[in-house]
Amino acid sequence: MTDGRRARGSARLAELDPGLEAAIEKGLAPVAPDFARFMVEFGFGDVYARPGLALKQRQLVTMASLATLGTAPKQLRGHIKGALNVGLTPTEIVEALMQVALYAGFPNALNALMIAKEVFAEAGVAPHNAPTPDHEA
Amino acid sequence: MTDGRRARGSARLAELDPGLEAAIEKGLAPVAPDFARFMVEFGFGDVYARPGLALKQRQLVTMASLATLGTAPKQLRGHIKGALNVGLTPTEIVEALMQVALYAGFPNALNALMIAKEVFAEAGVAPHNAPTPDHEA
Amino acid sequence: MTDGRRARGSARLAELDPGLEAAIEKGLAPVAPDFARFMVEFGFGDVYARPGLALKQRQLVTMASLATLGTAPKQLRGHIKGALNVGLTPTEIVEALMQVALYAGFPNALNALMIAKEVFAEAGVAPHNAPTPDHEA
Amino acid sequence: MTDGRRARGSARLAELDPGLEAAIEKGLAPVAPDFARFMVEFGFGDVYARPGLALKQRQLVTMASLATLGTAPKQLRGHIKGALNVGLTPTEIVEALMQVALYAGFPNALNALMIAKEVFAEAGVAPHNAPTPDHEA
Amino acid sequence: MTDGRRARGSARLAELDPGLEAAIEKGLAPVAPDFARFMVEFGFGDVYARPGLALKQRQLVTMASLATLGTAPKQLRGHIKGALNVGLTPTEIVEALMQVALYAGFPNALNALMIAKEVFAEAGVAPHNAPTPDHEA
Amino acid sequence: MTDGRRARGSARLAELDPGLEAAIEKGLAPVAPDFARFMVEFGFGDVYARPGLALKQRQLVTMASLATLGTAPKQLRGHIKGALNVGLTPTEIVEALMQVALYAGFPNALNALMIAKEVFAEAGVAPHNAPTPDHEA
Repeated sequence: MTDGRRARGSARLAELDPGLEAAIEKGLAPVAPDFARFMVEFGFGDVYARPGLALKQRQLVTMASLATLGTAPKQLRGHIKGALNVGLTPTEIVEALMQVALYAGFPNALNALMIAKEVFAEAGVAPHNAPTPDHEA
Repeated sequence: MTDGRRARGSARLAELDPGLEAAIEKGLAPVAPDFARFMVEFGFGDVYARPGLALKQRQLVTMASLATLGTAPKQLRGHIKGALNVGLTPTEIVEALMQVALYAGFPNALNALMIAKEVFAEAGVAPHNAPTPDHEA
Repeated sequence: MTDGRRARGSARLAELDPGLEAAIEKGLAPVAPDFARFMVEFGFGDVYARPGLALKQRQLVTMASLATLGTAPKQLRGHIKGALNVGLTPTEIVEALMQVALYAGFPNALNALMIAKEVFAEAGVAPHNAPTPDHEA
Repeated sequence: MTDGRRARGSARLAELDPGLEAAIEKGLAPVAPDFARFMVEFGFGDVYARPGLALKQRQLVTMASLATLGTAPKQLRGHIKGALNVGLTPTEIVEALMQVALYAGFPNALNALMIAKEVFAEAGVAPHNAPTPDHEA
Repeated sequence: MTDGRRARGSARLAELDPGLEAAIEKGLAPVAPDFARFMVEFGFGDVYARPGLALKQRQLVTMASLATLGTAPKQLRGHIKGALNVGLTPTEIVEALMQVALYAGFPNALNALMIAKEVFAEAGVAPHNAPTPDHEA
Repeated sequence: MTDGRRARGSARLAELDPGLEAAIEKGLAPVAPDFARFMVEFGFGDVYARPGLALKQRQLVTMASLATLGTAPKQLRGHIKGALNVGLTPTEIVEALMQVALYAGFPNALNALMIAKEVFAEAGVAPHNAPTPDHEA
């Protein structure tokens, strides 16, 4: 049922960011309104809304994939906001992005961390930078 | 302290797969033994062993990054095994890899799922394929 | 209507390759049967079946995208077969893949051409290699 | 004959965008003038000017490759303009970029569509957004 | 010994650009200070400071890798500056970036050359554009 | 002059590997003979044969770019052979590939090192693994 997919996607998307669906629709309206519908129906209604993986886990997957691509800084920004909204801590977000350096290189990880820094500043939050085990300076 | 980094990395790596460190060392011995050391010391001792993100969460990040790259099927296979070893369920792994399709495209996600299928078969496990909400056929 | 999406996708996919849907379903059955459904419903029913771009044009887009990625040789092979099935000539396919070298580099284009060579040999077809304008040797 | 390659490339490039060759030459003059020559001679004179694939088809290949890369928004913008100039309709361009989502992910396709939106606005054109088959809201 | 890695990394980094370490630390301080430490200790202390490859050679490797990725223009800019600082000539830098076109495509190479142009202008240097063998116009 | 480009490219290619041009031509003959010509004329005659960067330097650039892509293991193998043929030492090659890990991640660097291992074994050479400064075990 198409309505079910759309409604389910809208609900899931609103958990990440209440204003995002309207922004997506407005941005795509003059060029590809169906693409906005696909993002909500398929991306959020079919995939993101599935049982089997918690929403906090899904945000880890999304942030890691976007940081690895390196070509979608705006979407990464949106998903870091969404990660905060669904309950990942700034520390968890930073740790996830740092780890991406191992697979996608330092520059892509660094660019992702700089985006996280801006999102955290806007949200008034900060990671807890635990002293690491072997660093006594 | 160098010994601390190596020991910490070895311990973390053993949680993922007890035989992996020896395999890495053997494979790199004739060409770049220091690279094996860097992988253990830096990759697992400095990054993977950090507090702030649970090991199950780290495996989600790693699998998403490797599936997005699409160029490292062997390492993805090893990390899917590691994901099972640290307690992610086959269903969680499948859901994570399916989600990668949204960001890195269907082919990279499909290739990752085919690798997961082989790992699951070797391990004698299978995902629980819950019927999805709007699919009554 | 979900059935509409699936049926439309199945029909479109059959135009590319009559046996492909069954192969996709069989391959994914033990690991992610819904992913096979998503590929047919969304990939072929929602996107590929849209009006506004002819199927031969869609195959050019797909081959160019897959050759640029460089990480999905199996899918590229399948879509080169599909390109022949929907009426692109071997020459058009070769020209498209050669052009990818300008944007994604010679190695990705060369790898794609080697796959095309195998597909053409299996299909018993060959490109017409027109002598190029300034090459008189 | 070198002159033949250059002249052929200039002519082909002018079909895409009459002012582009001068812009390429001016931009590269202080740093790599031969690279501008290579782009015209090889890119447009050797590859783009070949028989066997129509110019409209070549633009589909180029747009798909650039959208998949995701790292060259300026060149994608130029080639979307070129696509309009050689007769692809806004609808065909939008359909091609939407399809890239299947292979290179939603973010790269979305970024490409946003560029198309700007090009269309400058050119005073718009895609015809046909109602899709199963969407009656 | 951790201090040895850090000191060695700092020294190597200073050869590339005396102000870069402080800039990295300042930029990452609010979000991931350990990531700055990792970049200096591991990136420059463990890898970049190794014997076996001259610093000028290392800059060729780094510029080629960053230009191929295409996702890190800031880091490429920094490493082109570093390349000048360690003695690569503008001509050598331009030749290296032009060659990347063969493997990573024209757009990524072109974007890299545009960055080099800006770095050269700031540094008041220019490549020597030798007339190429077969170009007599 | 076309002949000049081809002859210059052939000569340069032969410096890397005397049998490579014939292999390229044979491989592409049934599908895209002009692509073989383009690789020799443009890739080696126009770009690789330019003055301004030594052949050993060019091999560093090529290996770094190919290792970063991660999608062209055969071409990387060929260029590692070529690197040995033009006088880079196994140690220099290993150091270059290890450094790629910083920008393109550990997996792409590891895959490249495994290819180097095979090339070295076939050639009967080995890198000199200097003990690194802070490793006294």
